[in-house]
Amino acid sequence: MIDSPVLALAKDLISRQSVTPEDAGCQEMMIERLKALGFTIETMVFEDTTNFWARRGTEAPLFAFAGHTDVVPAGPVDQWHTPPFRPTVIDGQLHGRGAADMKGSLAAMVIAVERFIEQNPNHKGSIAFLITSDEEGPFINGTTRVVDTLMARDETIDMCIVGEPSSTHFVGDVVKNGRRGSITGDLRVKGTQGHVAYPHLANNPVHNALPALAQLATTKWDDGNEFFPPTSFQIPNLAAGTGASNVIPGEFDVQFNFRFSTELTSDEIKSRVHSTLDAHGLDYDLKWTLSGHPFLTDTGDLLTAVVKAVADVNHKEPELLTTGGTSDGRFIAKMGAQVVELGPVNATIHKVNECVNISDLEKLTDMYEKTLENLLG
Amino acid sequence: MIDSPVLALAKDLISRQSVTPEDAGCQEMMIERLKALGFTIETMVFEDTTNFWARRGTEAPLFAFAGHTDVVPAGPVDQWHTPPFRPTVIDGQLHGRGAADMKGSLAAMVIAVERFIEQNPNHKGSIAFLITSDEEGPFINGTTRVVDTLMARDETIDMCIVGEPSSTHFVGDVVKNGRRGSITGDLRVKGTQGHVAYPHLANNPVHNALPALAQLATTKWDDGNEFFPPTSFQIPNLAAGTGASNVIPGEFDVQFNFRFSTELTSDEIKSRVHSTLDAHGLDYDLKWTLSGHPFLTDTGDLLTAVVKAVADVNHKEPELLTTGGTSDGRFIAKMGAQVVELGPVNATIHKVNECVNISDLEKLTDMYEKTLENLLG
Ligand SMILES: [Zn+2]
Ligand SMILES: [Zn+2]
Repeated sequence: MIDSPVLALAKDLISRQSVTPEDAGCQEMMIERLKALGFTIETMVFEDTTNFWARRGTEAPLFAFAGHTDVVPAGPVDQWHTPPFRPTVIDGQLHGRGAADMKGSLAAMVIAVERFIEQNPNHKGSIAFLITSDEEGPFINGTTRVVDTLMARDETIDMCIVGEPSSTHFVGDVVKNGRRGSITGDLRVKGTQGHVAYPHLANNPVHNALPALAQLATTKWDDGNEFFPPTSFQIPNLAAGTGASNVIPGEFDVQFNFRFSTELTSDEIKSRVHSTLDAHGLDYDLKWTLSGHPFLTDTGDLLTAVVKAVADVNHKEPELLTTGGTSDGRFIAKMGAQVVELGPVNATIHKVNECVNISDLEKLTDMYEKTLENLLG
Repeated sequence: MIDSPVLALAKDLISRQSVTPEDAGCQEMMIERLKALGFTIETMVFEDTTNFWARRGTEAPLFAFAGHTDVVPAGPVDQWHTPPFRPTVIDGQLHGRGAADMKGSLAAMVIAVERFIEQNPNHKGSIAFLITSDEEGPFINGTTRVVDTLMARDETIDMCIVGEPSSTHFVGDVVKNGRRGSITGDLRVKGTQGHVAYPHLANNPVHNALPALAQLATTKWDDGNEFFPPTSFQIPNLAAGTGASNVIPGEFDVQFNFRFSTELTSDEIKSRVHSTLDAHGLDYDLKWTLSGHPFLTDTGDLLTAVVKAVADVNHKEPELLTTGGTSDGRFIAKMGAQVVELGPVNATIHKVNECVNISDLEKLTDMYEKTLENLLG
């Protein structure tokens, strides 16, 4: 049996070992196909990262597919049932690193565009691809720099589907129509080191900070809203001490992370955290790192077109959620674009034995193609 | 000018690099002097540790000097103004590692005994030395094993002076007549690891533990008593996290240490900590390590004799305190012995440029000798 076009392309992509930030020729493979369709290609290399921007058409609206060719490392190879970079079909599932995140989606995008253009050679608006090899890495030289380049020349994406694996049980059961913001605080509480036998000569920053941290951990930051769960606070890392059981530490390092809804701004979060720390009289340094503001696509042509396309294929409308980790969608949303994420089931991503249901890939291709028809057909 | 006997012996001891658990011949030097005075010597080697027990006389009461020949490492040698193992006199201070902790005391003990025996060749009772080279290390193969050996043969120390540097501003301003107990708890709070974006699928043990730890840190454990400051609780070490800012940790390790008075037992402390952790519904493992029970010598011949000896030399009675870190006194106290600690000023111990006032060493020799006269003369 000959592989279907989407399966064949997904296999070709998986067989290239593009561990982040490597692209390993994946983009060149996509570019060849898009060139043949009349796309204009711009390769954008920033530092160690290969990106490309491909566009067909000059009119508005500008619709873009966004995604990444890099994958996370294979992890413990002996726990894989198949070689991670040798695409293998077992019981209707395509196995291999990147099958679900997100080489399957990339293949579906290309095939969907090929089919759409065959039917609509003179489509409305413009179609684009924004592809990076730096999504699983530090995301410094990838999507964000391509977006900066486009914004500098006033080329604005109006609507974008990010191919991240958004689904839970079957493809299209969930469309992500926004993401929470993420901000990290690196706190150092300062005290005075000393010997545990002489506590009056020392000042234990752990003891000082505990009530404030307990308060932060139990604070209700907001109630969320129709589209966002309540803002959450988590302490992923903390440490104090020299290792010796008789030394009171002089410093206490605590890292916390907020995933926040559109009910709060990052400035409001900062201000409330500082108020709590100050109210407890702590001596501290606090460094903030904003990973992304929250974004939301709750109305508009794109969401309508995607929901209709998914419902056409599945005979069931998708659930719209904003849960989950950050994605490159945040960088595109800041252009003012409507952004949704639609991709395969995410159950195995970043794990050993990553796989994707092949019939889901076919359906995903249909969903992408129907979205194009709904918008630009 | 010829060095006085106590200065000469202190210098000889300091020039031997007996970094714990090394003895480097210090004990042999002491043994030669004690043999000449008619002491019976027993060398007791346990694993890497050299100890000796020397006794003169067979009658009760048995009075012992206790101490250690090992020293802590020199630390950063470039911060020393003199070579740490080359004893050097500057402005009436003898400089060198171990000068104050406690080779100066060892020299004072030997000279005091030489003088006392010269005057009292047929003294009452017995005089002994219990010397180890494992006080600055893990104190496993030192004093505690010598004590076990003595107890196994029913040889019981009645009174003991430990030569630890007990003094604050001048020799004999403070005599330690007891020490607090010390017990350490190694707590592991268990949760469920997960991604910060999905807090409902994880269970952050840091968040769970914070209120319990805050409560432990602010608990009033007792009021202390006439002889002991209140029991203190300190968290010297704690850690959680994988280092990644997006992973909720699955475990949280906290180490705490109690320095406790005679108002509490270690069992009462354990029970109260477990009650607090249980009241907060924590899932945890907790391993306890008891370093020593508190001990107190608040009456008796020894304290009377030492206080009188110090007052004779200083024209001022010593302050009796139980503050400070643990010492080998706890092992001797468990024989039922009266134990006090009397030694030089501790301002420079375990630091670079450790030193001791030479006239304090002469006074300490007098104090030790007068104590012997008061007890056995
Ligand atoms: Zn991805
Ligand atoms: Zn010592």
